[in-house]
Amino acid sequence: MAKNEKMVEQITSMDVDFAQWYTDVVKKAELADYSGVKGCMVIRPYGYAIWEAIQRDLDARFKALGHENVYMPMFIPESLLQKEKDHVEGFAPECAWVTVGGENQLAERLCVRPTSETLFCEHFRNVIQSYRDLPKLYNQWCNVVRWEKTTRPFLRTSEFLWQEGHTMHETEEEAREETRRMLDVYRDFYAESLAIPAYTGQKTEKEKFAGAVETYTIEPMMHNGVALQGGTSHFFGDGFARAFDITFTGRDNTVRYPFQTSWGVSTRMIGAIIMTHGDDNGLILPPAVAPIQVAIIPVAQHKEGVLEKAAELRDLLAKKFRVKLDDSDYSTGWKFSQYEMKGVPLRLEIGPRDIENNSCVLVSRVSREKKFVSLDGIAEAVEEALKSVHDELYNRALENQRARTYDAHSYEEFLDIAQNKSGFIRAMWCGETECEEKIKDATGGVKSRCIPEHEDHLSDVCVCCGKPAKHMLIWGRQY
Amino acid sequence: MAKNEKMVEQITSMDVDFAQWYTDVVKKAELADYSGVKGCMVIRPYGYAIWEAIQRDLDARFKALGHENVYMPMFIPESLLQKEKDHVEGFAPECAWVTVGGENQLAERLCVRPTSETLFCEHFRNVIQSYRDLPKLYNQWCNVVRWEKTTRPFLRTSEFLWQEGHTMHETEEEAREETRRMLDVYRDFYAESLAIPAYTGQKTEKEKFAGAVETYTIEPMMHNGVALQGGTSHFFGDGFARAFDITFTGRDNTVRYPFQTSWGVSTRMIGAIIMTHGDDNGLILPPAVAPIQVAIIPVAQHKEGVLEKAAELRDLLAKKFRVKLDDSDYSTGWKFSQYEMKGVPLRLEIGPRDIENNSCVLVSRVSREKKFVSLDGIAEAVEEALKSVHDELYNRALENQRARTYDAHSYEEFLDIAQNKSGFIRAMWCGETECEEKIKDATGGVKSRCIPEHEDHLSDVCVCCGKPAKHMLIWGRQY
Repeated sequence: MAKNEKMVEQITSMDVDFAQWYTDVVKKAELADYSGVKGCMVIRPYGYAIWEAIQRDLDARFKALGHENVYMPMFIPESLLQKEKDHVEGFAPECAWVTVGGENQLAERLCVRPTSETLFCEHFRNVIQSYRDLPKLYNQWCNVVRWEKTTRPFLRTSEFLWQEGHTMHETEEEAREETRRMLDVYRDFYAESLAIPAYTGQKTEKEKFAGAVETYTIEPMMHNGVALQGGTSHFFGDGFARAFDITFTGRDNTVRYPFQTSWGVSTRMIGAIIMTHGDDNGLILPPAVAPIQVAIIPVAQHKEGVLEKAAELRDLLAKKFRVKLDDSDYSTGWKFSQYEMKGVPLRLEIGPRDIENNSCVLVSRVSREKKFVSLDGIAEAVEEALKSVHDELYNRALENQRARTYDAHSYEEFLDIAQNKSGFIRAMWCGETECEEKIKDATGGVKSRCIPEHEDHLSDVCVCCGKPAKHMLIWGRQY
Repeated sequence: MAKNEKMVEQITSMDVDFAQWYTDVVKKAELADYSGVKGCMVIRPYGYAIWEAIQRDLDARFKALGHENVYMPMFIPESLLQKEKDHVEGFAPECAWVTVGGENQLAERLCVRPTSETLFCEHFRNVIQSYRDLPKLYNQWCNVVRWEKTTRPFLRTSEFLWQEGHTMHETEEEAREETRRMLDVYRDFYAESLAIPAYTGQKTEKEKFAGAVETYTIEPMMHNGVALQGGTSHFFGDGFARAFDITFTGRDNTVRYPFQTSWGVSTRMIGAIIMTHGDDNGLILPPAVAPIQVAIIPVAQHKEGVLEKAAELRDLLAKKFRVKLDDSDYSTGWKFSQYEMKGVPLRLEIGPRDIENNSCVLVSRVSREKKFVSLDGIAEAVEEALKSVHDELYNRALENQRARTYDAHSYEEFLDIAQNKSGFIRAMWCGETECEEKIKDATGGVKSRCIPEHEDHLSDVCVCCGKPAKHMLIWGRQY
């Protein structure tokens, strides 16, 4: 067992090398594996089970709001991609192109979808004729490709999995509401299911999606203070509709252009989970998306009655929770480390003495606190303990986010924070792209995250140029 | 309403033009739409909801047998595809190739996966070291691309959605068992969930999968007597393991090659549903995968209490079934046609007189029989009626399959059947590929479907060459 126990020790400490720690966790928790294909990863069963839990949860939230799933082709003919000017400029540089099909050079090359606005628009044109056909509330779960130079599992890969919602509305107001509503869905999902607090708000002109009028974003902060763009929701106005000639007959019998939104989150969220909650013992999973919520570890399992009792507990708890009983012949200590590494939120230990006392031990993966609980009402105790794990995770992340969010009242203070602290910076801004670019260059990569939904008034002037401030911006380095 | 009612009349009759009937149903039932991308389709909400029901059902069957979902990259480097000789020969001609990524010509071109044996093998090599790592029982749900010249929605498209199971085993026997077990899963799923009976059996050498030692297949017969290859399960021996150098240390401490299987079914099954069960009024969906199982149509809905009662019924039934109440202002007749077209298995009519009698009317989409049932115990009545629809569908398809399966005792009889009947032909076969080719040429496309699991003895000699017969073969034209 010595060899196995070493496995856990092999994780690099977060404080020593956060990037290496991340890579170690991805590998040792068996979330993903590298592949021979540049920039593409293999999502292993344990990692994919997290994605399945995320999909189930989000999909139910989307459907509760009336969204329907569809599937669009994965290829976009070059001429179709080019129909919206800003969009093609944004995406063409990172496209993968199919040029040969079935042994023949193609007359027109096909882009492997980096996002599917153009394909949805082509279809919307076929199925929208009257205001009675609106709204169209579509979503698809699929793979997309954006050619990346440097990649990291989950955080940035050339191929990734995501959902992309695409909706069409009769009025601008309705489309704007949808854009904000879906940002709220993401924020709620991050908080309620991933136990991740986050800033939400609007992207600047510079940072918005190619082709969008407005982009809204959710920006969780990772444990080390670096931002991860966690999801976006875009309002397109009627720009794509005009470019793709999508029209409908309105209630007043005039021909109109519909208003459009799109919104998406991806497997990147698994990276956010790792980097928000993990520690030096490995992964920590929020209970809502943990493939195993409770690991039952029998203690002194060779003793009479222990395995039987453990199996009985598993059968009881499996009715309500995702449970694994590990009755393998590894040592108890190895099992403890193993399920800690894999981030299982709750460990249930049961041994001969516990059975005598009609009790067991629950151990939180976060606080590592041990709690002796009676086997009567064990399901309720487990439920409560899982809720505690969720709350502990959320509060800890919120505390980290608060502690690492700094206010800059002057350019010098901004540069000082950017150089000496790792976290988010709140500062006033004039609204000009030049100031964003100046700050990015001066700090070696600090970029605006968003104009937060609730802006405070830190001063009257832009932290960069001193001109009158229009907004408060949140800034940070990003993955 | 006249305009709307015409919609139903526009379906071409099956007997007049089966291919046009199929296209009409796909379009009018809003299952799929054509896209501007050659050979690729848009799967619309109603069609995709069928696919989601199929996924839920099959995924549970796979997981109950211990399979885990994973996700592999969608690109296969050309050198990786070439590692197994037969495999690359089979698939290279129908690959789509990515040659440009992020504005640069790629050093090695990438095939968009037509199937993922090679990628799974590359990963298996990393994660299999000891017999303790076996079996690996993996599955993935994804899109694949096979460049097709002539395409039809669901039946044959350049891109399609499917699941592909890939497993590795310690012994040949275990892998062979897995291959057969998964064929059984498919047969049970077709029968129990799609209400489709089918022949199952082994493919000949000529028809087996590129790189497989043995291929098993499920071959349902469509309403018009044409076969649809409905799913396959392959035994690979250790061929890929040797080509990819995948080894493990066995129980006896020697280094061994593991034994492999793969198996898959696709969105093509939606084509099978349409062509097995549909009629001149449109689609008919088996209850297990119908997005709407019960359509509630209020009669004289302007009368007091009708809509309230209908909504009450919907709320009650929605606890157990997928229900839609249509209280739109279309005419009752239009609604009847509409949900018939969409293949909803059961219609529930409720009007003022029914309410007075504390009853309602259930109408089967298959038999169109009307049944007056009491509102007391309505959930049980609906359950029973759905079960009846399933059984009616299955039995009707089985009858058609039996009526259209012919025995050929001589070459002349074979050609006569092939020319004058549409259906399957059972005949004895010597085991030689030449005879398959001769028959295919002589009949303009009749191909062997499978050596069925239960062979009858029709004669001692091959129907084609007269040499001693080795097997009974089932033959047919295919989609």
